[in-house]
Amino acid sequence: MMENDETSDQNRTTRYSNGLANGFHNPQSENGECVSCGSDGGSDSGSNSSSGHNGIENFHHLHQDLHNNGSPAKRCKLRRRLDSGKKNRPPFPWFGMDIGGTLVKLVYFEPKDITAEEEQEEVESLKSIRRYLTSNVAYGNTGIRDVHLEMKNLIMCGRKGNLHFIRFPTQDMHRFIQMGQDKNFSSLHTTLCATGGGAYKFEEDFRTVAGLELQKLDELDCLIQGLLYVDSVGFNGHPECYFFQNPSDPEHCVKRPCSLENPFPMLLVNIGSGVSILAVYSKDDFKRVTGTSLGGGTFLGLCCLLTGCDTFEEALEMAAKGDSTNVDKLVKDIYGGDYERFGLQGSAVASSFGHMMSKEKRDSISKEDLARATLVTITNNIGSIARMCAVNEKIDRVVFVGNFLRINTVSTKLLAYAIDFWSDGQLKALFLEHEGYFGAVGAFLELLKMTDDS
Amino acid sequence: MMENDETSDQNRTTRYSNGLANGFHNPQSENGECVSCGSDGGSDSGSNSSSGHNGIENFHHLHQDLHNNGSPAKRCKLRRRLDSGKKNRPPFPWFGMDIGGTLVKLVYFEPKDITAEEEQEEVESLKSIRRYLTSNVAYGNTGIRDVHLEMKNLIMCGRKGNLHFIRFPTQDMHRFIQMGQDKNFSSLHTTLCATGGGAYKFEEDFRTVAGLELQKLDELDCLIQGLLYVDSVGFNGHPECYFFQNPSDPEHCVKRPCSLENPFPMLLVNIGSGVSILAVYSKDDFKRVTGTSLGGGTFLGLCCLLTGCDTFEEALEMAAKGDSTNVDKLVKDIYGGDYERFGLQGSAVASSFGHMMSKEKRDSISKEDLARATLVTITNNIGSIARMCAVNEKIDRVVFVGNFLRINTVSTKLLAYAIDFWSDGQLKALFLEHEGYFGAVGAFLELLKMTDDS
Repeated sequence: MMENDETSDQNRTTRYSNGLANGFHNPQSENGECVSCGSDGGSDSGSNSSSGHNGIENFHHLHQDLHNNGSPAKRCKLRRRLDSGKKNRPPFPWFGMDIGGTLVKLVYFEPKDITAEEEQEEVESLKSIRRYLTSNVAYGNTGIRDVHLEMKNLIMCGRKGNLHFIRFPTQDMHRFIQMGQDKNFSSLHTTLCATGGGAYKFEEDFRTVAGLELQKLDELDCLIQGLLYVDSVGFNGHPECYFFQNPSDPEHCVKRPCSLENPFPMLLVNIGSGVSILAVYSKDDFKRVTGTSLGGGTFLGLCCLLTGCDTFEEALEMAAKGDSTNVDKLVKDIYGGDYERFGLQGSAVASSFGHMMSKEKRDSISKEDLARATLVTITNNIGSIARMCAVNEKIDRVVFVGNFLRINTVSTKLLAYAIDFWSDGQLKALFLEHEGYFGAVGAFLELLKMTDDS
Repeated sequence: MMENDETSDQNRTTRYSNGLANGFHNPQSENGECVSCGSDGGSDSGSNSSSGHNGIENFHHLHQDLHNNGSPAKRCKLRRRLDSGKKNRPPFPWFGMDIGGTLVKLVYFEPKDITAEEEQEEVESLKSIRRYLTSNVAYGNTGIRDVHLEMKNLIMCGRKGNLHFIRFPTQDMHRFIQMGQDKNFSSLHTTLCATGGGAYKFEEDFRTVAGLELQKLDELDCLIQGLLYVDSVGFNGHPECYFFQNPSDPEHCVKRPCSLENPFPMLLVNIGSGVSILAVYSKDDFKRVTGTSLGGGTFLGLCCLLTGCDTFEEALEMAAKGDSTNVDKLVKDIYGGDYERFGLQGSAVASSFGHMMSKEKRDSISKEDLARATLVTITNNIGSIARMCAVNEKIDRVVFVGNFLRINTVSTKLLAYAIDFWSDGQLKALFLEHEGYFGAVGAFLELLKMTDDS
């Protein structure tokens, strides 16, 4: 039985690599040989990468290595247990990955409907992945699970489970790939769907270091599919989407849930390291209107330079305490009041960082002021460009996503205000709870779709 | 004769204040009294403001004070000599002033056709102004005459002369106004046409400190009128306008003169401390499309913070030597190459300052790299917004002006490249030799126009 299963597994692997372009399979398996049996596992005993101090190397501890599971025959049998229960589903584990310029976003589907028999037959490595990912909220020094975003009791391809949201810095990517090699992830025969620039940049490393073939997916396709999916299923019984009521009135500006319902057309503004702005007309019809290189990476990079901070969290904490009007030159600093003829209020920023050409002013400001000014500058620039795009594309809903907005109410409220104010209330800014994870969700959905096609 | 002249002068003053709203006249003169005779001149002897070290206080030395010219009767007679020769012209001196967020721009018309008789009758203060302004290229520590921009042998209101272009920092404005008081400029009875935010911000100071009533003019009106005038008369026999041939090929990118000829419609991008973008359809028909607070003040302010420099010149010198790719995250840093699907080259900036979130990278870059990255970031952002506006307004000529472009070939070439490349050659970037002075020229033209109306 195990041997038969091995064959069917192998068939499935073959089908993946046929039907699904770059399915996640070990290149060695293409001749039909059992992969787990075919390699020597020698590279594992070293586990050099676990000496890293700043990565997600604790993944090392999450599972027994496949190669420590005894005889070649036994190891091959285990591959049966990688199955997710039916032939029209990809084998577990189910991941979707978005390798961005700053952060890697990983979504992981944890099946909650595992039967006793399944659990017994499940390979130890798979079980360990599940246990490790779901029982921790931090991995290594920089991997984080956003527990508050976990989506519960989803039914996906007939399996019920929870979707977990994990992120770690892209600079730890090499350690992650090395871990994939050390732990012989390739033997799990799941398809690793990856999007974001890193899917291209690290493709060769995945292949040569870890023996993994990535299924590369376009990041904007994934973004849209992921967003539409999460919005459609909702967030644990609540809407995924929200907006700000009274955006122009700080005292009464409150977050309100809403539904995208008929989401088209929408202007989608994805603020990651840089910014992409899309006009989305339907599920499969969109265009990239423009982009700007002044994004989340600019905010963090400048803040690190100007304040000596090291993390996004620190930068935002400082910004929350600062006053940008000590740094920026306002219309009233130039006009003495409003520039009435063109409707520019005295409180509008005329020149970001415009006060900082004066040594006297430089000596009088705080790091917090600088952090706030950086945040306000980047946010307003994005808001202004987005507003122009919305007007030009004749789209009145502007949906902001991306990890720049994570724990960043200063920016979300400022965007809501800017979009409302500068459009005289004609445009509406919308936000989504899962901010930066839609690309990863979209990649994950591709994994499931592939199986439907196979 | 002198007494008769006094009356005519006074009449003219009255005509100005009637026909021209806020003509530049001493409020005390409204009752018809001779202003020079009516004040005691006591405030002049102190000359406190000449102790300033960083201003244009050397203006103090440029003329004898009117109040030192003898008896009340003699002083009144001198007012005859303020005349520019005919009744349908405003009295000399002829100035136009643009008080911006960073710089004050002053244009001064030097009559070159003064007859011997005129010269003899000219009041000493007026002669001193002319000699001081035209025989120096620097005034105090911060006033500069841009000699290379001088426009020669212009005929204006029947007078032949040269137009001089002078600038000083707006932070020295109070010293300038105090000098106006110390030297009793108000007795010259010229109309002081001023535009820019400072015309509003400093209006009260001009009035209360120096006894001067400003003729306030809108800065965008002045910008357009000044630009059209200078382009139409040309720059000493050469075209005022230029563009870059082969903007996409650094080795063969060369500056070429051209004419605006039929200049409408044009998209006019004024890069001062901040940026205004206008769609100009005719001499009198324009709209302010949008603006961005990320302008020249942002570049200089950030450069001062990041590199410790103090001046625009220093900032540009550093930027010329730096490499922004050490600071910015490029598409290839994220993708490993091009992002082909959306036509983004690997060399395009994906995230400005995006490398700077890494301490290792921060430790490896130079101040020059930071200055260059700041310049490239601000310039590309303006270019991108301008391009969007041009497309939306269906205007294919984008004219860039403003003092941000002064001695700044990095930015002019980058703008020319960006406009060309991102529009697939559909749009053309144009530049003007007098960069930041058109507002001041426009204010100066208003002075002459007022006389036509009177």
